[in-house]
Amino acid sequence: MMAQIDGIAEHVIERCRLLARASEEPGFTTRTFLSEPMHAIHRHVRGWMEKTGMSVAVDHVGNLRGVYAGTQPASRRLLIGSHLDTVPHAGAFDGVLGVLIGVSLIELLEDRRLPFAIEVAGFSEEEGVRFGAPFIGSRALVGDIDEDLLERLDASGMSVSETIEAFGLDPARIAEACAGDDTFGYLEFHIEQGPVLDSLGLPLGIVEAICGQSRVDVNFEGNASHAGTTPMHMRRDALAAAAEWMSAVECEAREVSNAVATVGRLEVSPGASNVVPGSIRATLDVRHADDIVRRDLVAQLLRSAGQIAACRCLRVSHEQRFDQAAVAMDSDLTSLLERAVLSAGYPVRRMPSGAGHDAMIMARRMPAAMLFLRSPGGISHHPDECVLVEDVAAALSAGMRFLEELEPRYA
Amino acid sequence: MMAQIDGIAEHVIERCRLLARASEEPGFTTRTFLSEPMHAIHRHVRGWMEKTGMSVAVDHVGNLRGVYAGTQPASRRLLIGSHLDTVPHAGAFDGVLGVLIGVSLIELLEDRRLPFAIEVAGFSEEEGVRFGAPFIGSRALVGDIDEDLLERLDASGMSVSETIEAFGLDPARIAEACAGDDTFGYLEFHIEQGPVLDSLGLPLGIVEAICGQSRVDVNFEGNASHAGTTPMHMRRDALAAAAEWMSAVECEAREVSNAVATVGRLEVSPGASNVVPGSIRATLDVRHADDIVRRDLVAQLLRSAGQIAACRCLRVSHEQRFDQAAVAMDSDLTSLLERAVLSAGYPVRRMPSGAGHDAMIMARRMPAAMLFLRSPGGISHHPDECVLVEDVAAALSAGMRFLEELEPRYA
Repeated sequence: MMAQIDGIAEHVIERCRLLARASEEPGFTTRTFLSEPMHAIHRHVRGWMEKTGMSVAVDHVGNLRGVYAGTQPASRRLLIGSHLDTVPHAGAFDGVLGVLIGVSLIELLEDRRLPFAIEVAGFSEEEGVRFGAPFIGSRALVGDIDEDLLERLDASGMSVSETIEAFGLDPARIAEACAGDDTFGYLEFHIEQGPVLDSLGLPLGIVEAICGQSRVDVNFEGNASHAGTTPMHMRRDALAAAAEWMSAVECEAREVSNAVATVGRLEVSPGASNVVPGSIRATLDVRHADDIVRRDLVAQLLRSAGQIAACRCLRVSHEQRFDQAAVAMDSDLTSLLERAVLSAGYPVRRMPSGAGHDAMIMARRMPAAMLFLRSPGGISHHPDECVLVEDVAAALSAGMRFLEELEPRYA
Repeated sequence: MMAQIDGIAEHVIERCRLLARASEEPGFTTRTFLSEPMHAIHRHVRGWMEKTGMSVAVDHVGNLRGVYAGTQPASRRLLIGSHLDTVPHAGAFDGVLGVLIGVSLIELLEDRRLPFAIEVAGFSEEEGVRFGAPFIGSRALVGDIDEDLLERLDASGMSVSETIEAFGLDPARIAEACAGDDTFGYLEFHIEQGPVLDSLGLPLGIVEAICGQSRVDVNFEGNASHAGTTPMHMRRDALAAAAEWMSAVECEAREVSNAVATVGRLEVSPGASNVVPGSIRATLDVRHADDIVRRDLVAQLLRSAGQIAACRCLRVSHEQRFDQAAVAMDSDLTSLLERAVLSAGYPVRRMPSGAGHDAMIMARRMPAAMLFLRSPGGISHHPDECVLVEDVAAALSAGMRFLEELEPRYA
């Protein structure tokens, strides 16, 4: 079994690399919602699915869905999924890997039927690139596609609806994509997209929760003045104030276990080398698995901004961009996943996910669990993104144990 | 005399406001090198000059030059000058005020002749806006116009040479603009463009030196990574490093008397709210009247950048953009100016100029002195830039005393 799993793990990686060539941009992997190369992706994945005996269909939001029937026609169903779209200039594994691990678990069953069906879903959209709205694929499975979303336009003025039609699907039938009540759980395999597992030397991580996220725009208003003629003590330098605040953001976030706080964008105005900056527009991104901890930290960082501005006779203002609550994974399914990882012979590490995932959407409708695979170098959203064969083998082994653990429940 | 000076001071301000209407842009004051509105400026100023009995000509770099003859045909000559061009969306006083104070000093002489001639020069260019090369007007007086400068192009592809021709002048005759050896000194009146005199409640400041200036680009290179999945302690955040450094710049510059150091521009890459910044490009502008102090401070700030980067496992690099030496004003002429200010009944305040001025160029060829007028609110390069009537009167009084102090020398 182990030798077979190693071979299949290599296969999974080869398939990911093959799919990475289906792109909107030659030389890069860029695959936004239902763009032309998604047809090729569907052709390949459908082929691999059908070879295992799955029956395959594309739902009307463009998700590719293969069902591997259970021992009885009315079997309950486990859903294994991830997404097939990518960011621009992506790597080969973010999303796709989770779908192909799902397909390979079915291959490893070698036509053996379980007391429950397994559906493998390749979601059409998770990254939010084309329409600025993420999770279009998984949102259809939980019945969360509304008219507003369908009318959203991409940069070329084409709507979500029109995009679905152009792909040969019918937006009026999206409701049919909803997951049925017979689906008892959702499992997602995904690369970590961060450096934690790599730094610990661990192949797998069990996601306990997907972090909540705050995004706030913070503006400092001082006084633009001549860099040569304004003495240091007479300046109201908005960038100097922002610098002091950014150091506070870093320092205060470090004090809170497992919190991250980031100033990722900063606009300096007027932005000339010989002018003391008069105003600054900064973004603040704060994440934590505990919403109370996160909101407390945001409040504290905004207080710091206020104090720093006051000391310097500057004005500060802020605008909350979003406040997304944390989503806990299902404790029962997560314990089962933990036992599966242990019995497959791998160490267990529970961790939060700092990034959003389809599991976060699916958790609204059914118990969800998620397994991270180590991201070497923590690299993601980049052509250098990779995954180790032995880690894919570890995920496949753990996945097989997970299915075995489930069997007695539905026997 | 005082009542007369007050009236003339009001006149000077009215004239500045009138000239501010001659602009390339309706509703704003924008007047770059030899642009169309400069014809109107010349018409006005020439008229005022000729009324005092000055003989007026435009040299071939476009400087308007009026000569008020002395008691003898071969009299030596004092040059009083400043510039007639402006930055985009300028105020009414930067440059123009100095020229019109020169004209009004002649008016105050009421046709009385001195043992030396006085030339008032309105330089065609100081701000460097149109061709990215400042001081074109005064450089012609010190014989510093070369082919490179003449071939420089503006944004429309028009050269300095062509611009001069289009204005009706002959670039081949620029050498004739050179100041003769009979010119014994240069005096410039200019608004301070900073808040120092205003904060001290003083109308006038005597410029001791024009600060040297360093401009350095400083680049921090870290590692762009996911803002959600990269724990605080595993980041190599280039913006966090730059923030720490900018606080050091502010703090260390404050420790050096009369130094200014400014980070005016900062580019964050990739600059997305959910990505830890991977690289930063910052500008550093350092000025001081003492070149050794300035260069030491720059070296110290670059050492700080290196230390901060090293502590954070980042790389830092820098590129010196320019290193312009300080220019001292002539000590004899400056002492004479100081006596003039005192005897006119105003307190004396010596100060460096953090901004460059034509006096810096003229000092290469002759003794130069410079008098600052208070800038209310420290505002300059802005439509709100202003000057107080009583300060213009103070400058006129001090100017008259300055001429009186010079008389016995050339009698």
